[in-house]
Amino acid sequence: MVDILHRIGAQSSPDKVYTALATIDGLAGWWTEKTDGDSDVGGVIRFRFDNAPAPGGFDMLVLDAQPAQLVRWEVVDGPEEWIGTRIRFELKQEDDYTVVLFRHEGWKEPVEFMHHCSTKWATFLMSLKQLVETGKGQPAPHDVRISNWH
Amino acid sequence: MVDILHRIGAQSSPDKVYTALATIDGLAGWWTEKTDGDSDVGGVIRFRFDNAPAPGGFDMLVLDAQPAQLVRWEVVDGPEEWIGTRIRFELKQEDDYTVVLFRHEGWKEPVEFMHHCSTKWATFLMSLKQLVETGKGQPAPHDVRISNWH
Repeated sequence: MVDILHRIGAQSSPDKVYTALATIDGLAGWWTEKTDGDSDVGGVIRFRFDNAPAPGGFDMLVLDAQPAQLVRWEVVDGPEEWIGTRIRFELKQEDDYTVVLFRHEGWKEPVEFMHHCSTKWATFLMSLKQLVETGKGQPAPHDVRISNWH
Repeated sequence: MVDILHRIGAQSSPDKVYTALATIDGLAGWWTEKTDGDSDVGGVIRFRFDNAPAPGGFDMLVLDAQPAQLVRWEVVDGPEEWIGTRIRFELKQEDDYTVVLFRHEGWKEPVEFMHHCSTKWATFLMSLKQLVETGKGQPAPHDVRISNWH
């Protein structure tokens, strides 16, 4: 089992970062504009992407949603390598920053697609940082292109 | 043992990407302007950063340098968590892209600093992509700020 790890810090409040992680509008502002579903614990959020080489997306079951502290999802539909993996955003305040510790855990093998997803997560977390700091992120289809895999 | 993985693709030739990874001038163009030393196999490259919260850097022993294919380093001096870890850049051509598979392996524990380094590597690899595609990267001290840890 191998994990993708990231850490960003945004000059914003934990409440504001939490809202960007725990509401449909918030998520649509930094990950993909095509986000819908139910972001409450036990609900399923649907993320869709039209611009990737293989259009598709992810369905996430919300495992945890603790205001200003923690959001956890389990991938219940999407690419085979993602199904059953878990995604975790842990928030904490340091100075005037809200730090996000990110983990996408439970990958079976460190396949090439995992390398891609790690870099792509970094650019989306930078989009989250931009959203909460400036009001405007770079969600798909306006996301940063990192390679031939988009 | 846990690893940092990334994948980028640059619209550039494997030779050009290799030059950015295997020469002092190339490395100074995307990672840190303060780069010197010997980039031949068996040599040590010194990377220094003045703008991080704790100024310092990394000394890398060059393990492998196979033109247009592979660069491998071992960290021989730097932060305690980095010493003994290994960094690997594997190149391959796909369509009109040179794909870089990156791995920073041998971390003992998935500490918070490792989360930070994973995101920071992503932004530096995007700087490498910019350098080989446009002629201008974003090496330190002009690097993208990702958090309170810089």
